[in-house]
Amino acid sequence: MKKFEEKTIESETIFEGKVVQLQVDRVKLPNGKESHREMIKHPGAVAVIPVTSDNKIVLVEQYRKPLERSLVEIPAGKLEEGEPPEKTAHRELEEETGYLASEMTYITSFYTSPGFADEIIHLYLATGLKKADEPLGTDEDEFVEIMECTLEEAQKLINEKKIYDAKTAYALLYLSVMKNS
Amino acid sequence: MKKFEEKTIESETIFEGKVVQLQVDRVKLPNGKESHREMIKHPGAVAVIPVTSDNKIVLVEQYRKPLERSLVEIPAGKLEEGEPPEKTAHRELEEETGYLASEMTYITSFYTSPGFADEIIHLYLATGLKKADEPLGTDEDEFVEIMECTLEEAQKLINEKKIYDAKTAYALLYLSVMKNS
Repeated sequence: MKKFEEKTIESETIFEGKVVQLQVDRVKLPNGKESHREMIKHPGAVAVIPVTSDNKIVLVEQYRKPLERSLVEIPAGKLEEGEPPEKTAHRELEEETGYLASEMTYITSFYTSPGFADEIIHLYLATGLKKADEPLGTDEDEFVEIMECTLEEAQKLINEKKIYDAKTAYALLYLSVMKNS
Repeated sequence: MKKFEEKTIESETIFEGKVVQLQVDRVKLPNGKESHREMIKHPGAVAVIPVTSDNKIVLVEQYRKPLERSLVEIPAGKLEEGEPPEKTAHRELEEETGYLASEMTYITSFYTSPGFADEIIHLYLATGLKKADEPLGTDEDEFVEIMECTLEEAQKLINEKKIYDAKTAYALLYLSVMKNS
């Protein structure tokens, strides 16, 4: 028995989409009572911190429909079925920024919203960057703008709330730790 | 016009639950083509980094049904309607750990999964902790176990994959930066 395990009594798939699946489970709580859990199933994703040879970080700005605004983020994208995360990291980096990386170093992984979703992000540091001659393009419904900035400039984007997501906030904190160590 | 804006042509609410709402929008892309966006609406949340007077961080372990496992996390919880985030931070800290904080310092906010959800987390540092005489309990379907550990012990929990979520990973990195500055 796992700690505080909530055993599924009944599971209902409410929605199966292109990106997410919504499932509601009736569960038995550790005290024997019943409750419901609403859960989003997601294929998982990678995020990449691309650092150029002149120590700039490559960021992408894109529209995020759930927020009805654009955000500046590190490059990221969903895992394709059966694709090893490191390969996804190289692919997404090239698609979104046009860069190839000679080194892709695994940093860490984290669930983004464990209370209601199983999305996991695998985070990589990409170095040894050079522009691809004929880069893969973005997905046909994806529109991004690339920017390269220093850590100080990125900090300014945080203060202006243009950078406003967990993976990018983590990435910038990580770079500032690296810089000072 | 916002940058790369995706105008809603039609919006359908698929599911309205206790925690999340699922909405699918048909949108007009910046190039004039159409696509669909699957979006989770969430009330938003707070997370609290509680640090005791002897420099230990207070963590909670709970079962996360979407992952079918328990995770060790910093205390966190959803905003109630109209509740200022700082008040939520005090409430969730007391409910989940039994601690009252004399200081609740705002650190930052971030979206957790901007690609498919609008969940935002407001992060606070709680200090000046003392145990409440008669603490608020957890919600009736919430079972948590409290632990207090040093930053080094928390790092071990990361390596053992017991700590495995974005807000907690950010929190520990934040504390290590504070410690070294």
